[in-house]
Amino acid sequence: MKGWLTIAGLGPGAAELITPQVSAALAQASDLVGYLPYLNRVPPRAGQQRHASDNREELARARQALQLAAAGRQVVVVSSGDPGVFAMAAAVCEALENGPASWGEIDVRVLPGITAMLAASARAGAPLGHDFCAINLSDNLKPWALIERRLRLAAEADFAIALYNPRSKARPQGFARALAILRTACGDERPVLFARAVFTPEERLEVVTLGQARPDMADMRTLVIVGSSLTRLVPRPAGALLYTPRSAYPAGGV
Amino acid sequence: MKGWLTIAGLGPGAAELITPQVSAALAQASDLVGYLPYLNRVPPRAGQQRHASDNREELARARQALQLAAAGRQVVVVSSGDPGVFAMAAAVCEALENGPASWGEIDVRVLPGITAMLAASARAGAPLGHDFCAINLSDNLKPWALIERRLRLAAEADFAIALYNPRSKARPQGFARALAILRTACGDERPVLFARAVFTPEERLEVVTLGQARPDMADMRTLVIVGSSLTRLVPRPAGALLYTPRSAYPAGGV
Repeated sequence: MKGWLTIAGLGPGAAELITPQVSAALAQASDLVGYLPYLNRVPPRAGQQRHASDNREELARARQALQLAAAGRQVVVVSSGDPGVFAMAAAVCEALENGPASWGEIDVRVLPGITAMLAASARAGAPLGHDFCAINLSDNLKPWALIERRLRLAAEADFAIALYNPRSKARPQGFARALAILRTACGDERPVLFARAVFTPEERLEVVTLGQARPDMADMRTLVIVGSSLTRLVPRPAGALLYTPRSAYPAGGV
Repeated sequence: MKGWLTIAGLGPGAAELITPQVSAALAQASDLVGYLPYLNRVPPRAGQQRHASDNREELARARQALQLAAAGRQVVVVSSGDPGVFAMAAAVCEALENGPASWGEIDVRVLPGITAMLAASARAGAPLGHDFCAINLSDNLKPWALIERRLRLAAEADFAIALYNPRSKARPQGFARALAILRTACGDERPVLFARAVFTPEERLEVVTLGQARPDMADMRTLVIVGSSLTRLVPRPAGALLYTPRSAYPAGGV
């Protein structure tokens, strides 16, 4: 049988958020490749081999998956969220570009998933209802100066800003600096959503102002959304809603 | 029975991209509310009422759905893609904020879906694999000057840029101006993805340079992604891949 490689997004955590397309690919695979906590989200299947790797090993994991597919295996690389957003799809493309010419024949597919900012936004209301951006706060793969520059320009553009990977044990200071930059650019009253482990039993949502936001409100499982100048918190008995209006009239703002 | 209102994302078009969570909500609803082409994507169900409306009627549609839920109906508002991205979730929040106090008790939920840029990105490779932004090119609800400003700042930040609603019959000129602004800011060689009706039988993908991009390459069903300075097209026998590397080292670029 001919090998193939599919990079599939498992969404934010709940099985009911995995698309049928991804479930079908998982059922057809001979081999699953991925970071162990993500593999653990896929129910075991008889005869299916699992290849777990550590978190920082994206490129090695991508090469291993391509080697398996080149050897005729049916391989699914599992990603949390969407594989195209700060995840495994780009790593597989990098491995392909720099790999042997024979890998050029491998059938490679990417299957989308619900990325963290869409899940967080849904649970809070609609904070991404107008123009927005997504910035990965990890400086493992880019200079911190570039992150700061993007934060300032995103605030100047008045985007709502989704912050992926805000904080980890290895990077305790970056998020505090990001918050300080955003406070200077946007003021203390701007609403901020801390959305942790949404659509899982550990879900925790918190909306504060930038003035109230503290670095320790985020961890590795938290997605942060900083509102635009138009983002509003609407209190209501059935649960507050955080949203950005569709219209930038008449306030304008920028 | 107590009424409720759920705003559900149908994804880009294929049934296999609708999450089980959304399918379950559709099965439980007494009433479906939405733009007719989106309602037509949901198979009919005995006893379920459908309330179709025209495209530009988001706020009236939101109010109608809230009135039904307040009257005890189980209502699903259907959105294409993700309801939180340039879609119905923000319209419902607006209607709630400005509606009667009694609507404050209504149970409102947003169920995420695969938004167009994630679907387009998956089909092309991983063009959103690094920091990116999403800009709605429609100036129905914001000044055109704000769109131009955001395009310039997004290019300066070196984001990959997803352009929603690039072009319609009512707005034939805006997309041409957007392309001109981006050519000035990014140069002629920057890759651009035109992704039309992805994951449907009418799917068409095209990757050109900004210098080659013409306004008539896009229509209302097209999602456009303009790459960052790092975005690359990798030709391969099994199909070219467009991707943005995870790392901004060593080139840096900005």
